[in-house]
Amino acid sequence: MIPPIVEFIVTGDEVMRGTIADTNTALTASRLYPLGLQLRRTTVVGDRNEDIRRALLETSARADFCIVSGGLGPTSDDLTAACAAQAAGVPLHRDAQWIESLRNRWTKVLRRTDAMPINNERQADVPEGAEILGNPDGSAPAFALKIDRCTFFFLPGVPREYHRIMQELVLPRLVAATGHAVLRTRFLQCYGVAESRLDELVQPIREAHPEVRFGFRTKFPENHLSLISLAQDVATAEANLARVEEKCRAVLGSFVYGQDGVTFAQSVGEALAARGETVACAESCTGGLLTQLLTEVGGSSRWTKGAYITYSNELKQSTLGVPRALLEAHGAVSEEVARAMAEGAREKSGATWALSITGIAGPGGGTDEKPVGTVWLGLCGPAGTGSKRLQLRGDRGMVRMQSAFASLQLLREALHSGKAV
Amino acid sequence: MIPPIVEFIVTGDEVMRGTIADTNTALTASRLYPLGLQLRRTTVVGDRNEDIRRALLETSARADFCIVSGGLGPTSDDLTAACAAQAAGVPLHRDAQWIESLRNRWTKVLRRTDAMPINNERQADVPEGAEILGNPDGSAPAFALKIDRCTFFFLPGVPREYHRIMQELVLPRLVAATGHAVLRTRFLQCYGVAESRLDELVQPIREAHPEVRFGFRTKFPENHLSLISLAQDVATAEANLARVEEKCRAVLGSFVYGQDGVTFAQSVGEALAARGETVACAESCTGGLLTQLLTEVGGSSRWTKGAYITYSNELKQSTLGVPRALLEAHGAVSEEVARAMAEGAREKSGATWALSITGIAGPGGGTDEKPVGTVWLGLCGPAGTGSKRLQLRGDRGMVRMQSAFASLQLLREALHSGKAV
Repeated sequence: MIPPIVEFIVTGDEVMRGTIADTNTALTASRLYPLGLQLRRTTVVGDRNEDIRRALLETSARADFCIVSGGLGPTSDDLTAACAAQAAGVPLHRDAQWIESLRNRWTKVLRRTDAMPINNERQADVPEGAEILGNPDGSAPAFALKIDRCTFFFLPGVPREYHRIMQELVLPRLVAATGHAVLRTRFLQCYGVAESRLDELVQPIREAHPEVRFGFRTKFPENHLSLISLAQDVATAEANLARVEEKCRAVLGSFVYGQDGVTFAQSVGEALAARGETVACAESCTGGLLTQLLTEVGGSSRWTKGAYITYSNELKQSTLGVPRALLEAHGAVSEEVARAMAEGAREKSGATWALSITGIAGPGGGTDEKPVGTVWLGLCGPAGTGSKRLQLRGDRGMVRMQSAFASLQLLREALHSGKAV
Repeated sequence: MIPPIVEFIVTGDEVMRGTIADTNTALTASRLYPLGLQLRRTTVVGDRNEDIRRALLETSARADFCIVSGGLGPTSDDLTAACAAQAAGVPLHRDAQWIESLRNRWTKVLRRTDAMPINNERQADVPEGAEILGNPDGSAPAFALKIDRCTFFFLPGVPREYHRIMQELVLPRLVAATGHAVLRTRFLQCYGVAESRLDELVQPIREAHPEVRFGFRTKFPENHLSLISLAQDVATAEANLARVEEKCRAVLGSFVYGQDGVTFAQSVGEALAARGETVACAESCTGGLLTQLLTEVGGSSRWTKGAYITYSNELKQSTLGVPRALLEAHGAVSEEVARAMAEGAREKSGATWALSITGIAGPGGGTDEKPVGTVWLGLCGPAGTGSKRLQLRGDRGMVRMQSAFASLQLLREALHSGKAV
């Protein structure tokens, strides 16, 4: 079977003018590509009737499927439904059932007691012959319409609404179009391995198992592997995925820190929480970034005690009890100070573990002996203190991010090895 | 004069498959739109000869200018130069001067002593008749080529190289194409004002001054106004810009916190540093985010002393000296505790000012009395302590970000009003 050709059309002056960036397309593409669909083109046009209509007509002759994002709202610059009708050569009609659900939503979901503005009803206008797909989170319905050889899916552009409709209502139809009935996905999230190396490691598995499709996505400093299993039935899809996942996990080993959307810090935090343990941080050059990562997910009070951001040498002394003599003899960016910071943080906080970071994030502050990117990490645990020197590349933001990740990795290794430090 | 029509073409499998997101286009669009150019379409295609060639040919008949990003490197999937030659119906030729500068770069910039790989020379292949624009930061040269009615600018896709070439080599040519010779820009960065309100406030000025173009860009929770002045000479461009900027600043007042790329936290930090003052933070629900914002720019040790991330009640007591009775009587999320945290942080750190944040970021932890989004801010300064209650909407990340900004705003107002707190 020749894989179906898929295109995207994004509408909206705000996207076209760079006021907001379109993130729907990249995310959708990363989901669709592993299905084996041919993603051939994305077209972005502003809120201009002629441009939208022309893009639809051009695509209708080239693609089998097209996902159109944006322009379904109630305001005068929402033109997509009208353009779709014109491109298809059919009139718009007001869907009575959708009017009903708009009214329901107005009173029951939005809890409004005033009358619904007449403008809102515009959102029930769809091209004649269109199939209404709905919208679990909003008032503009997604709809499907065939024009020429191409089936178009029209979706609201609001990311939250777009993503859910894509996942629940559109993806299953595209899976069916590939000749399969069921789709099972696994994202293996990796840290500490470059994308090219990741690709290399799994290549023999990928070649031996064409029944599962492999995709890659970089999220600095992490790399994610997606495995997509397509089959005629649930049992086959799941068995194929499980078999390939196991083999990938075997070659990737501890590069895989988690799956399906967990964050790196969260995976370390959950491992701590499972042992009934906690962590406290002593941060200098990262200025709170490490603690921020540890607390950005809900439930983080189970593993985070808190942190001491000792940016000044003064605070390193007064808050963490780092001896002044140590600072004077070795400088703030040194193994000795990193160790003392971790030890001080563990003692003051009463946490099971303490992580410390002290370094030169740049752009200024580097010397020949300690250039920008020099970072010392400390880890203090139940059985003692460890440390590690990093020499990092990149700008200030990258140095800070890599430092925070390497610090979490230090703790992860200690938990994993069963060694005290 | 009818404004020239501009299109973008982005090439690359990684963009098309969602492995990386294209950020060049949105940024470029936000710069070009205020020039009064008609941005009509962006086309994204993968690394496929037929698709790139077709996109170039279609655009060549529609647009006056087109910026093409990506596919100029040395590897086999870099097809753009060859496709451009085919679309223009001319042969590729190897530019001897660029070979020379490639060799220079190899030995002098990259400091390599081995021979340059022969593959690298591919980057000097450009369509016959193309004008080489160069590349200050890389080895693939940008070039310009006219096909049909359209002048194409071909740029490497690497963001750092792309941005500099765009700014220094392409933008001036587009400015000239609008019939003007000089471009002057000002970005007024605002906090505390919604985009619609910002638009409303400056509308009379915009209407009275067509010689300056207005643009908007949202960067949650901030909104930025861009003013672009185009004229035949520097003096006129600068005078027009200064006049309009002054009027905008008058109506926007303290909504404007900075200009041309400063961050909100940095603007507060610089104001502190100018007074020889410092700040320390006591964070609970924001988990280090506030301190992270204060330290993400270089030089932040001039205004940041450090911070106490007291996530647990235990640490609020042991680190900041918040009385246990206060925590028991009012709960951790209360005016009393916010004040005590700020007072403790100021005393322990010796900073001029201390900011505190305690709240419920969600998704869990809310009650009827204190729902998710309830946040108390504290500020302790030379003359006493102040506090503020927030009731925020949005997910955990949004609640945390808004809390950190509101906290900085509290300090900004105190510095601005001259009042002690």
